[in-house]
Amino acid sequence: MRALVRDPARERTFSPADGVLTTDFAAVRDDPAVEVVAEVMGGVEPAGSHVLELLSAGTPVVTANKQLVAQRGSELFAAAAKAGVQLRFEASVCGAIPVIKALRESLVATNVHRVLGIVNGTTNFILTEMEGGASYADALAEAQRLGFAEADPTDDVSGADAAAKMAILATIAFGSRVTLADVDFHGIDDLPAGLADAARGHELVVRLVGTATLIDERVDVRVRPALVDRRHPLAAVEGAFNGVMLQGDAIREITLEGPGAGGMETASAVVADLVSIIGTTGTGFLHNDPCWRSLERMPAGDLPSPFYLQLEVDDRPGVLAEVAQRLSAHGVSVARLTQVPSGAGASLHIVLHEAPQRAVEGALSEIASLPSVLAEPSLFPVISDRGVVELGWA
Amino acid sequence: MRALVRDPARERTFSPADGVLTTDFAAVRDDPAVEVVAEVMGGVEPAGSHVLELLSAGTPVVTANKQLVAQRGSELFAAAAKAGVQLRFEASVCGAIPVIKALRESLVATNVHRVLGIVNGTTNFILTEMEGGASYADALAEAQRLGFAEADPTDDVSGADAAAKMAILATIAFGSRVTLADVDFHGIDDLPAGLADAARGHELVVRLVGTATLIDERVDVRVRPALVDRRHPLAAVEGAFNGVMLQGDAIREITLEGPGAGGMETASAVVADLVSIIGTTGTGFLHNDPCWRSLERMPAGDLPSPFYLQLEVDDRPGVLAEVAQRLSAHGVSVARLTQVPSGAGASLHIVLHEAPQRAVEGALSEIASLPSVLAEPSLFPVISDRGVVELGWA
Repeated sequence: MRALVRDPARERTFSPADGVLTTDFAAVRDDPAVEVVAEVMGGVEPAGSHVLELLSAGTPVVTANKQLVAQRGSELFAAAAKAGVQLRFEASVCGAIPVIKALRESLVATNVHRVLGIVNGTTNFILTEMEGGASYADALAEAQRLGFAEADPTDDVSGADAAAKMAILATIAFGSRVTLADVDFHGIDDLPAGLADAARGHELVVRLVGTATLIDERVDVRVRPALVDRRHPLAAVEGAFNGVMLQGDAIREITLEGPGAGGMETASAVVADLVSIIGTTGTGFLHNDPCWRSLERMPAGDLPSPFYLQLEVDDRPGVLAEVAQRLSAHGVSVARLTQVPSGAGASLHIVLHEAPQRAVEGALSEIASLPSVLAEPSLFPVISDRGVVELGWA
Repeated sequence: MRALVRDPARERTFSPADGVLTTDFAAVRDDPAVEVVAEVMGGVEPAGSHVLELLSAGTPVVTANKQLVAQRGSELFAAAAKAGVQLRFEASVCGAIPVIKALRESLVATNVHRVLGIVNGTTNFILTEMEGGASYADALAEAQRLGFAEADPTDDVSGADAAAKMAILATIAFGSRVTLADVDFHGIDDLPAGLADAARGHELVVRLVGTATLIDERVDVRVRPALVDRRHPLAAVEGAFNGVMLQGDAIREITLEGPGAGGMETASAVVADLVSIIGTTGTGFLHNDPCWRSLERMPAGDLPSPFYLQLEVDDRPGVLAEVAQRLSAHGVSVARLTQVPSGAGASLHIVLHEAPQRAVEGALSEIASLPSVLAEPSLFPVISDRGVVELGWA
């Protein structure tokens, strides 16, 4: 056994045997007793070069490195296939939740057409704190105090981290390469005040949801703050947990939920992958590069979704009719609506039936320019795929 | 390809090639072109003999047969190991939900110490209908009308079907054989009237929950109607769906949810198992008999749980003190309590902090004999493992 480390002298909670720790990659690569390697260095380099060298030399590799898989997966899987060895990466997405194995092995006989995911624990922690009444600033500070969020939380709160994970999940689910550049993402750092409270009145909760959708051989992958039906399985994902719902023709929907990060959780997934490699001889064809076709990206406006619309308006007769007329003119219909007093005017909270984003945005640009609309409208997708709550006029 | 059928002349939705359908098992067994067999006959015989013969002859088998795995697993896994071939059985529990693969492969590096499962879709459908206001009789009739429940629903509503599934899950989770006879089960056909409504007031929902628990090298497996915290992932399991929560040291908790039955769902799991066998050469050690040790059963009274207690009492001063004193004398403490008028007296709904079942039952037998207690008390376990609702005096 060998372990490549930066500083062999660093104090550790265990005592490695003589010769185990090394700062020389060649000592790992060239040791004939090393049959499989786990890469937990993080970062794209030098991790990527090391993994590539190992795979090319016929050594199977397990990695927990999300950026490496997302950015250099194509190259690494090609090297693995050429050498006839496995590259496994369960720990790279959602910690110990076995979503990669479920997609690659358990759902091999179903056509997965949609993946919904709460795949960033930091933002989910912040949102559930805000659900409990905390301000965004306080919730973020608490996440930082607990070690869930970095000093610079941008990668999490901007949605970028979730986007990288959704790229990997979409790639596997659909068998077509999706990179970070293909993912349209928006974070949680600019939510309107009072959203969580208003959502509660509609039996909805605020979550940062990634969606990967395959319709007519076209793919859409995005990350958005979304309002999730209180009875939807993803609404039950609280605190720093992650949850992923897989929808497919033969399975309807399967949801996996659990801790999406953590040292022990990651170690559990890494060791499970090591065992999967050791416990199956040779290279099962299951573990070749998951990509076998090249699908078009769907134009953003084509994706249908129900939406949640929040408007600040003058509190005077006729405003509601104006708004409803603009929606209707674009073929967008209202499922539920509440109006509450707000300052000098009123807030309208509107749940819309499913419509293409383009239609809703078309209506919204007209609505935004109405003189009686006082502020830029807020629009969110609604997650209510199970249909357990019948939408109708409130 | 061969398919063993009862009646080759029966009308089918597809046209099998000549020679595929046969009524002669030997034609399947002796065909050298048959490399793997899927058993979807159901029943213990003749399925069991056929599977045994195939495994012994070196042919790997996939089965969807819950009773076969539960009753003859030991013998079948021994034959598979001797011949060096795989026996896979994902479809035997929870349809397409990959709980077997998750337990056997993904969680191989964690010690799973508890499995909580909603593993019977029929009863879950009935309970969620009752949550919506239906009577038990109406909900059962609806389940029968929709084909979720048999004309004789005993196997489902008694908890026996859930018990057989929990036996398989416990066997795999703990690596020690658990049979149906080891599972203590109770169904949903005698729930007290008004339970769902009262539970709602405490933010709890009624579910039929199987629990498999490993404490101090001892196992407890049972199936019970339980009150589940509205924010617990299992509370989000609605209608005919199944959900399983796996708790372990390295993973905290992972929940899998989805349709637990259905033709396409079962087929998806069977084909995935076939692919797993074909896609890995030889016998990975992951797929030997999961049993490697023999653990003691835990005495029923030892299992600690929070409980929910419903009492019908005289509405007069001192009754509450009498009840509280009996609980306290057995070391059982009250987390939340509500009292509502009920006929001539009052109903007490009490959420108890975690205590061994023996202590709670000891207190309860004294409480039941108090002159001011008007009816046999009702006691239910509470599932609130995530601790998202802080229990305290209401």
